[in-house]
Amino acid sequence: MSDISKYCTGETLLLDCGSGGRAAQRLIQDLFISRLGNPTLNRLDDAAYLELKGPIAMSTDGYTVDPLIFPGGDIGSLAVHGTVNDVSMLGARPRYISAAFILEEGLDLGLLAHIVESMGNALKTAGVLMATGDTKVVPRGVVDKMFITTTGVGEILVPNPPSGSRAAEGDVILISGHLGNHGLAIMSSRAGLPLPSDVRSDSACLNHAAQALVLNLPDVHVLRDPTRGGLATTLNEIAQQSGVVFHIEEAAIPVLDSVSQGCSILGLDPLYLANEGKIICILPAHDAEKALEIMRSFPEGQNAARIGRVKAATGHEKTGQVILDTRLGGKRLLPMLEGEQLPRIC
Amino acid sequence: MSDISKYCTGETLLLDCGSGGRAAQRLIQDLFISRLGNPTLNRLDDAAYLELKGPIAMSTDGYTVDPLIFPGGDIGSLAVHGTVNDVSMLGARPRYISAAFILEEGLDLGLLAHIVESMGNALKTAGVLMATGDTKVVPRGVVDKMFITTTGVGEILVPNPPSGSRAAEGDVILISGHLGNHGLAIMSSRAGLPLPSDVRSDSACLNHAAQALVLNLPDVHVLRDPTRGGLATTLNEIAQQSGVVFHIEEAAIPVLDSVSQGCSILGLDPLYLANEGKIICILPAHDAEKALEIMRSFPEGQNAARIGRVKAATGHEKTGQVILDTRLGGKRLLPMLEGEQLPRIC
Repeated sequence: MSDISKYCTGETLLLDCGSGGRAAQRLIQDLFISRLGNPTLNRLDDAAYLELKGPIAMSTDGYTVDPLIFPGGDIGSLAVHGTVNDVSMLGARPRYISAAFILEEGLDLGLLAHIVESMGNALKTAGVLMATGDTKVVPRGVVDKMFITTTGVGEILVPNPPSGSRAAEGDVILISGHLGNHGLAIMSSRAGLPLPSDVRSDSACLNHAAQALVLNLPDVHVLRDPTRGGLATTLNEIAQQSGVVFHIEEAAIPVLDSVSQGCSILGLDPLYLANEGKIICILPAHDAEKALEIMRSFPEGQNAARIGRVKAATGHEKTGQVILDTRLGGKRLLPMLEGEQLPRIC
Repeated sequence: MSDISKYCTGETLLLDCGSGGRAAQRLIQDLFISRLGNPTLNRLDDAAYLELKGPIAMSTDGYTVDPLIFPGGDIGSLAVHGTVNDVSMLGARPRYISAAFILEEGLDLGLLAHIVESMGNALKTAGVLMATGDTKVVPRGVVDKMFITTTGVGEILVPNPPSGSRAAEGDVILISGHLGNHGLAIMSSRAGLPLPSDVRSDSACLNHAAQALVLNLPDVHVLRDPTRGGLATTLNEIAQQSGVVFHIEEAAIPVLDSVSQGCSILGLDPLYLANEGKIICILPAHDAEKALEIMRSFPEGQNAARIGRVKAATGHEKTGQVILDTRLGGKRLLPMLEGEQLPRIC
């Protein structure tokens, strides 16, 4: 179990740190610039000047995860990974991100420093710079501790970038590793349940792997990270966007035994749990082995597997459907998530 | 007084609208895409594909304003104006923004629709497209109604863009209109105090005026919008960044009589109140008249005025100081904001 209290120093955030005045200036210099600073950020103009060549990929996400620190990461590393990954899924090299912090009056400054430090480490691993930011402090009770919204931009590397609308008949569907770890880690951590040591969030930056895929395999049709709603929901979105049917082999989907068992106990389905370090890659069958080899050359892709095929709708099937070939030899629809398994999962 | 209840429909936001599943998809289509849609946003990939030529300006801000609707605007129009304006201050043409919504379970959907509609109108006036977005729904009590974080990107139009570090001895300081309206409007609205009809937020997009300034006057040294902390704090920041001293003439600063009176009653100083539709422009004296003429050609710049000069530090002065020449003929330091006048002003 992670323990927030070990980072707490007892020094707390005051409301006037969000005023735009002198206290805000001190907070920005002492806490943020010292951990995230670089020549672009340090200019501290209203907007950052970015040396980027178009076309550009842009993505944004708000992070509200509870608890702030969980096995395998924290809201800071997650806010970097999530946005870096989304930019990468468009075949782009993420270069800069921005971060807007909304902080509750009274937040422990040691905890905040730990989270900002964690963002800095994640950015370093990704090779991405913090370009600009914003800090708001709101009165106690207006927000639960802290939210971070990150926005990433990067240069699109290939002339015909991957898109959820490009899955085509004859393509195969690959996944870069075990599913469900992030969702189960958050859920168990929040509930205070003990976890086997291999159940940790998979939160990681995927930009290096995604870049290797699109630069070596010009026919990568779709890259997407199955976050909220899990693999099942993300596959449904892609099948709808592309107007095709997906056939997924249940037995081929990589899930850790400990995650399967944890999910059974909690009544969760790993196919609907959020992942924060996995890539779905859809491309022509003849490129499948090469793509798996590339994925497996990265630590976060060592358990990459081929899990299904893309077909046109036949018989009673409808375009946009995801059909699961079950372990028992049957077939069933794998629908999009209905309802909400886990609020504040990311 | 604005009245939130008139937009409420009684239909409320459910937690599963933030799940990434089917309910989220419906919310996005019915509420967001219908009001903000365009070919870039409608692709709904993890990242948006932007046709932009570098170099690029990027800016982000989180909006937590209370109340959500106030005289002269709402959190939606404010979140567009604020970020469009920050991008513009770097001599850039804002082209795209992203928006991340963090919404409280139970939020009225009619109110949300009104705010999203207002964002759409503000974007249309600015000539900026919504490129991508994110929606999180958090349980009741985790956030007070809603926050919006917007991030803007645009093309830098001039080879030597304005920056807070470029104010130079001999420059003059211009302001595009009356100060303090936004801060007083929010404060009075929150307190339920009646306001004279001319005290409304000045929230407006400044990109067209800023663009006219930098394209017609290549020697514009600084553009900045005096938001949180007001004119006084923003001038201190610029004087520090540039290593100069500012001399400001109190009698030349445009403030509406009704705002002066309202501030007297509430114990506020209009020089420290946030503005959301004003430009500080610093440039060589020989360009001042032309700059004022350009500002006055826009509705939001009709009361533009010359308010001060940039000097090197002499005698007891220190670089980074802002010195006010008072109406009574004296001089006093105009320091940066200490403490917090107004949380949740933007």
